[in-house]
Amino acid sequence: MAKIKVGVLGATGNVGQRFIQALDNHPWFEISALAASERSAGKKYGDVADWKIGTEIPESVEDIEVVTIDPKNIDADIVFSALPADLAMTIEPAFAREGFVVASNASSFRMEEDIPLAIPEVNPDHLDLIDVQKKNRKWDGCIITNPNCSTIMMAVTLKPLLQFGIENINVATMQAISGAGYNGIYAMSIYDNVVPYIGGEEEKIETETLKIFGEFDGAKVKNAPFKVSASCNRVPVIDGHTEAVWATLKDNPKPETVRDAFLKFDPGLSHLPTEPKHPIIVRDELDRPQPRLDRDMGKGMSVSVGRIREGIRYVALGHNTIRGAAGASVLNAELLKEKGYL
Amino acid sequence: MAKIKVGVLGATGNVGQRFIQALDNHPWFEISALAASERSAGKKYGDVADWKIGTEIPESVEDIEVVTIDPKNIDADIVFSALPADLAMTIEPAFAREGFVVASNASSFRMEEDIPLAIPEVNPDHLDLIDVQKKNRKWDGCIITNPNCSTIMMAVTLKPLLQFGIENINVATMQAISGAGYNGIYAMSIYDNVVPYIGGEEEKIETETLKIFGEFDGAKVKNAPFKVSASCNRVPVIDGHTEAVWATLKDNPKPETVRDAFLKFDPGLSHLPTEPKHPIIVRDELDRPQPRLDRDMGKGMSVSVGRIREGIRYVALGHNTIRGAAGASVLNAELLKEKGYL
Amino acid sequence: MAKIKVGVLGATGNVGQRFIQALDNHPWFEISALAASERSAGKKYGDVADWKIGTEIPESVEDIEVVTIDPKNIDADIVFSALPADLAMTIEPAFAREGFVVASNASSFRMEEDIPLAIPEVNPDHLDLIDVQKKNRKWDGCIITNPNCSTIMMAVTLKPLLQFGIENINVATMQAISGAGYNGIYAMSIYDNVVPYIGGEEEKIETETLKIFGEFDGAKVKNAPFKVSASCNRVPVIDGHTEAVWATLKDNPKPETVRDAFLKFDPGLSHLPTEPKHPIIVRDELDRPQPRLDRDMGKGMSVSVGRIREGIRYVALGHNTIRGAAGASVLNAELLKEKGYL
Amino acid sequence: MAKIKVGVLGATGNVGQRFIQALDNHPWFEISALAASERSAGKKYGDVADWKIGTEIPESVEDIEVVTIDPKNIDADIVFSALPADLAMTIEPAFAREGFVVASNASSFRMEEDIPLAIPEVNPDHLDLIDVQKKNRKWDGCIITNPNCSTIMMAVTLKPLLQFGIENINVATMQAISGAGYNGIYAMSIYDNVVPYIGGEEEKIETETLKIFGEFDGAKVKNAPFKVSASCNRVPVIDGHTEAVWATLKDNPKPETVRDAFLKFDPGLSHLPTEPKHPIIVRDELDRPQPRLDRDMGKGMSVSVGRIREGIRYVALGHNTIRGAAGASVLNAELLKEKGYL
Repeated sequence: MAKIKVGVLGATGNVGQRFIQALDNHPWFEISALAASERSAGKKYGDVADWKIGTEIPESVEDIEVVTIDPKNIDADIVFSALPADLAMTIEPAFAREGFVVASNASSFRMEEDIPLAIPEVNPDHLDLIDVQKKNRKWDGCIITNPNCSTIMMAVTLKPLLQFGIENINVATMQAISGAGYNGIYAMSIYDNVVPYIGGEEEKIETETLKIFGEFDGAKVKNAPFKVSASCNRVPVIDGHTEAVWATLKDNPKPETVRDAFLKFDPGLSHLPTEPKHPIIVRDELDRPQPRLDRDMGKGMSVSVGRIREGIRYVALGHNTIRGAAGASVLNAELLKEKGYL
Repeated sequence: MAKIKVGVLGATGNVGQRFIQALDNHPWFEISALAASERSAGKKYGDVADWKIGTEIPESVEDIEVVTIDPKNIDADIVFSALPADLAMTIEPAFAREGFVVASNASSFRMEEDIPLAIPEVNPDHLDLIDVQKKNRKWDGCIITNPNCSTIMMAVTLKPLLQFGIENINVATMQAISGAGYNGIYAMSIYDNVVPYIGGEEEKIETETLKIFGEFDGAKVKNAPFKVSASCNRVPVIDGHTEAVWATLKDNPKPETVRDAFLKFDPGLSHLPTEPKHPIIVRDELDRPQPRLDRDMGKGMSVSVGRIREGIRYVALGHNTIRGAAGASVLNAELLKEKGYL
Repeated sequence: MAKIKVGVLGATGNVGQRFIQALDNHPWFEISALAASERSAGKKYGDVADWKIGTEIPESVEDIEVVTIDPKNIDADIVFSALPADLAMTIEPAFAREGFVVASNASSFRMEEDIPLAIPEVNPDHLDLIDVQKKNRKWDGCIITNPNCSTIMMAVTLKPLLQFGIENINVATMQAISGAGYNGIYAMSIYDNVVPYIGGEEEKIETETLKIFGEFDGAKVKNAPFKVSASCNRVPVIDGHTEAVWATLKDNPKPETVRDAFLKFDPGLSHLPTEPKHPIIVRDELDRPQPRLDRDMGKGMSVSVGRIREGIRYVALGHNTIRGAAGASVLNAELLKEKGYL
Repeated sequence: MAKIKVGVLGATGNVGQRFIQALDNHPWFEISALAASERSAGKKYGDVADWKIGTEIPESVEDIEVVTIDPKNIDADIVFSALPADLAMTIEPAFAREGFVVASNASSFRMEEDIPLAIPEVNPDHLDLIDVQKKNRKWDGCIITNPNCSTIMMAVTLKPLLQFGIENINVATMQAISGAGYNGIYAMSIYDNVVPYIGGEEEKIETETLKIFGEFDGAKVKNAPFKVSASCNRVPVIDGHTEAVWATLKDNPKPETVRDAFLKFDPGLSHLPTEPKHPIIVRDELDRPQPRLDRDMGKGMSVSVGRIREGIRYVALGHNTIRGAAGASVLNAELLKEKGYL
């Protein structure tokens, strides 16, 4: 079977590099184009990428010539977008218009009515919003999005709690530095420090979660009826978002019952290449999960939970630039392919 | 006026050093005895202290000969206890029996019915539990305690919210390394990491807060009627506990109203030497308070608040080993003196 | 006695804030002007400074109206320059021409033949280069400079070694983040990391040291005859540069002899307000000096040394933005005043 | 071909875990025994290991029953020792006596005259000391050792410089926290700090290097004639030792010549499974190598060099618990097998 050609938009940045890592040796996809700014265009990816992930740069992309971010330059069925929100706002529709499937990590279109905001383990049916979108917008292609990194970790863990009737969520996040991009935070700002604010982050968790858990009736998504209140903090951690969650549940289940629900959670996606063996890992140690120890579980795609207590309170953790960004988009694309959209 | 003689029990440790710092050049108190383990006894404090605060060791204590922790060795009216909880359990009563006022930072007796758990700005009347205690226990002296570090920061900020009717508190803490003592946490455990668990900490916040805000009728304290649910985390910060608080308030005040209440908070204690000019500092910047920038405000005795939002949600921050430990005990002692107990 | 009026150029930045800290409550100097960029001019210092030192902003400067960096705006006898090198290049001569004494922390003029590069404890006579400078340049005022932060720490410790005949110096530095300015280093660049390169730093240590220890014959400075070879590294430390020094000394003294020389070092400047009691502090512990514990010694003006071993090898440490920048300039100004230049 | 059975002594610790990681799916070796203290014996490795590497614990070892460290309990041809030096002192000879080949990471026997201290890329012939050793000691088995972590990084880079005539080496190390073992360093000791001392480390680099580069005439090793002077520092980095090296070379080669020598370095060991494609990686960027970015190159077995300057000065970097410990031992064992000793 020939592999599906994929492009990466914004290929040189932090999330762009994670896309390349996620796509290296992918059984279904092969990178056919790497697009970045004028400054990098025309040069070899290996020469301009400033690879900062701590692994060797994959040989398969080292010699690819970077192109500018223009549909004309790209021969691919799907493009993964690691663009910043302002650029994504105009570029992603341009690609969709030209027939590309755009799997975007940007926030620009997440809350649009006819654009899916999807996590395969949580709301796979929302991807069918594509049909509505194409009709609405008369695009040959389409845009699909994955949620914000801090939303994803929590949403994956809320899915098995839905059965208990979610009424209210309070969540305090302790988010990694890499979430702001390589140049997003000065060392003097965060070392020996906590910054109790991340611009726009609380709004994203609070609104995106309701759309993700909204009911899709084939035409539109009706927001979930519960409430989310977030308090977002940056902490001195390289990768991995940790979240302290209070979930008020109608059925008032015991912690053991919640633990069982986490353990039994099986979204039936193990045939997707990027899906980890355990999308949720339950840690029973008193002091886990911890970002340095648990962020790379399931190649960065597992969400780890622990400290499930009366309340219900628990701690959730995942890798913000893999499970919370590039890996999330690639998993969405895999589900698209399986559904026949690719 | 002659100064009151004070001793420090557990003088060489992390909190012991903070006691000495708080008592150096104190206008009312003078250190007459430094007590520590057998290992240090008989030697000069300057030779055994392993001073780790980052300032010069005060000259006034450098040459004091350390004694063992025995009432017979100590000539003082009050002793400050920086003892670990297990030692405090037997040593503190021994001192109280011998007529000493014991101002303790240990957790051992905090929840005892006849022992005050006091913060001068919050529940100064609770100190009068001493009278009950002396009658009960037939001690010449007495024990008074200050709350756990993470409890204190929150309690100071809840005091001005009492007027709005506190119904429920959720709090996620991000606590500093120094809170575990100098040897409490391995570098490999916390660097580039968050540890979402601190043994006993959540129980302390949840129970101590209710006693602090309990009503004292002259005979006993009746616990406050609201609920506290805590999620405690260790983060890579040297000093300064940061807390994300959700306060459900009956009157449902607006954030501006809450901000005003914080600003107007004046417990009328400015005549006490250790009381800062502003026990609560309101920060209006989007991203404050932050531990590295705000922990030393008011010489480490101010609690800084910020990010007051609908909910009511806000962030509170204070220096854990000053406001949350040694400074809290010294402030209690100052109030005791003013009340005539010293 | 009326205080001498001083201005600070570049008052809002990292080093500018350290100047204000050093000048607050100064017995000889009082701040009469704070100058910064257009953006800040016309506003109160307290509103634009973004004070980041971790202490309260001094009340004495909070309400001072910031002016633009123009000699016309400033009424002062001396200005302290915390300007970046490129701006200093044109602005500092403009002030000198207008009759100001400019005490500069910038690197722009340090290596000019007729401009003193001075450390009061090391080469106080070099300040007399001012007379040569004024004659040469026909300025009413003058420029004096202090060395680069990493140079200063080492130079102070080399002074008492001069007597043994310095032949060669190798030095590996481990420098703090704050040395690059508040916005100089991204968190992703330095956290859990070492960066073995600081632009221009090695050249500065290698050339400045030779000028500092050069012989001044009343007309010019003849470079010292020894060699310095530096390897500069950035490490995850907020403040405080640590330096591993190898000093090849002609007389081949024993470590104890070198230790004695450090201990006996007394430049006779204790009457200067900013001079610490001990310009060099000798630490005999196996594992000192350490930046977090020793950087604030002598209010940040002492250089701590330790681990004096055969070789001669030793470790030197000082506060980079106090002893290595603002404090160094202020100390130079104090010596100027004493010499009658102010 | 049947795989060679290997045991790991001290399997639960930091280096023990790295051994298991290095041996997982090894093409020549298979783990047949995991030995640890009484406390762990009799239990499944997965239950006692407290796996802290940040990856999933390999399935192949999860269910292995841990045994006590006794030759009788172990069926293997070779045992890898991650024992602390004091235990290694008696246990390793006991295993050698019983016929085991012991590949040790401990320092206990490194400097013994008849025990090889080997790095395959540097002094592979020294492994033949085994013959001398067996004759001397009448052991059926033998002990081979790898150098200390900080020695290894430097020694690998000195090998290609031998041709220029090494006269003197000064080296300042900036070593990672993990080098002290999981419980070796308190967070309060190293966070926002540098500790300019590591017990015994400087002596190890200074003596081990001379033995490694010593001439082996079939009977004994004659120490190399040059001098090494080290200054060892602990910095806040999880993994990866960075070293600033000054190499005084008789031929006084230019930096470009030295760079060429590094680039051309090929010890001809690419057939060994653990040997990386490039044992030395040359980085031409101004600011590399850096521990977080380069420690995992060549699966942690490459040493990266950069900043090659006149002097000759350069920076070397490698993963301390892989290239500097477990990987070094496994590579030695692979060479042993090739030489027919296994």
